[in-house]
Amino acid sequence: MSNERFMERITSRENQNIKRMVKLMKSRKERMESGRFVAEGPKLCAEAASAGIVLDELYCTAEAREKYSQRLALLYPKASVCCEISGDLARKLADTNSPQGVYAVCRRPQPVLDECSLPFGRYLALESLQDPGNVGTILRAADAFGADGVILTADCPDLFSPKVLRSTMGSAFRVPVCVTGDLPALLVQLGATYATYAATLSDDAVSIRSCDFSGPSVVAVGNEGNGLSRAAIDACAHNLIIDMRGGAESLNAAMAATVILWELSGKR
Amino acid sequence: MSNERFMERITSRENQNIKRMVKLMKSRKERMESGRFVAEGPKLCAEAASAGIVLDELYCTAEAREKYSQRLALLYPKASVCCEISGDLARKLADTNSPQGVYAVCRRPQPVLDECSLPFGRYLALESLQDPGNVGTILRAADAFGADGVILTADCPDLFSPKVLRSTMGSAFRVPVCVTGDLPALLVQLGATYATYAATLSDDAVSIRSCDFSGPSVVAVGNEGNGLSRAAIDACAHNLIIDMRGGAESLNAAMAATVILWELSGKR
Repeated sequence: MSNERFMERITSRENQNIKRMVKLMKSRKERMESGRFVAEGPKLCAEAASAGIVLDELYCTAEAREKYSQRLALLYPKASVCCEISGDLARKLADTNSPQGVYAVCRRPQPVLDECSLPFGRYLALESLQDPGNVGTILRAADAFGADGVILTADCPDLFSPKVLRSTMGSAFRVPVCVTGDLPALLVQLGATYATYAATLSDDAVSIRSCDFSGPSVVAVGNEGNGLSRAAIDACAHNLIIDMRGGAESLNAAMAATVILWELSGKR
Repeated sequence: MSNERFMERITSRENQNIKRMVKLMKSRKERMESGRFVAEGPKLCAEAASAGIVLDELYCTAEAREKYSQRLALLYPKASVCCEISGDLARKLADTNSPQGVYAVCRRPQPVLDECSLPFGRYLALESLQDPGNVGTILRAADAFGADGVILTADCPDLFSPKVLRSTMGSAFRVPVCVTGDLPALLVQLGATYATYAATLSDDAVSIRSCDFSGPSVVAVGNEGNGLSRAAIDACAHNLIIDMRGGAESLNAAMAATVILWELSGKR
């Protein structure tokens, strides 16, 4: 264990670095302005590092250094600063009830997809989603089923908030993401070369089972409560529906997106 | 509004009926022994009533009686007892942060499917799931995609706990359910006439896309952390896998079940 890298032991929440980390965990504005985010837990920190994300600072409890020694040994050389924190401090910092005592301040990757030059592929577009857990689950499905990327409106939850990060299980580091301020305009623009679909419950929608996703395709999914905006629906060339035969009125956004990503993946 | 049905106004948590309701919300044992459960919110109460579930007692705040007057008017004649509760009491009872002030004590339906005589169909079996939200989401997907029923091991969360009920959005009242104390034995027994599949990540598993679900079929899904037990896998005739091409190590149980239910539904 490269103990010499551990520069100090921090026990107080009043420590400047710790205060900054708390801010990064709580505030999207802070994350955007500083270009940093916090990864919590040895697994997520390792996923970040292996996805090429730069680790500025690593904070571990003595207990965690022992318990996760193998995984952490790979991280020590990658972090500019390594500090030990007390177990008490780790519990105060934790976003969960079972903190693992490992935190890394990381450089936020830029959205890797430019909306003006999306590579051809199969994309899911999310409009104004609200629930961080839903967005995380959807990113994970996009990763599992190999979507070429996810388009998010700027008002969706930040992918680098602790909650979204935890529910993505590292997929936020791997799935190419494009953030757009104007989804309808982007859908119209893509419509020139992509098949564009709005996921709706409308009567004129075609079954997703009969959609042809063999070429470049994008499927737009709307907000949990209200579905897609009229402007986004109008911007798409087609409406698609996920066939339901039972009694449930609708699927939640994460389930709908999972089925869409599954179908996108199966029809290459 | 049939005001004459409202027998009293309750403001105290010490009221015997209220104390019993709190117990029903908190304790699975209480729900099982009394054969009752509590539905919270006007929508869920209405879903219960329209699914033929008997409402013993209905409790509403004055505000809720006004706000949800149309929906509640249909419920008043169905409940044996209607009482008004204070807003303060409603907030204390609430399982959510935004209580709607409507509670019904309902008769718990018996599991409608007898494991000794399951009607032919397409079933999902859940082994030892832990998360109430997952179970609720899966029931909702089973409802949406028209599965013939869901088989649950006895150690899965109770479908009539407030958390599961909320995440099922009423599907718990509609989806036929079979509770089993011995899933491997049931799978072996079903294997005589059903195609039985274990959802695993094993190398010899066949892609779910190539499975034939045209006849009676059951797919077993395991616990969130550990997957299916060895005994359950061995009891199934086939292993199936949900094809993944991306970087995510696995899907969560709810996502996996959603894809399975979707495929079961599409291959009738």
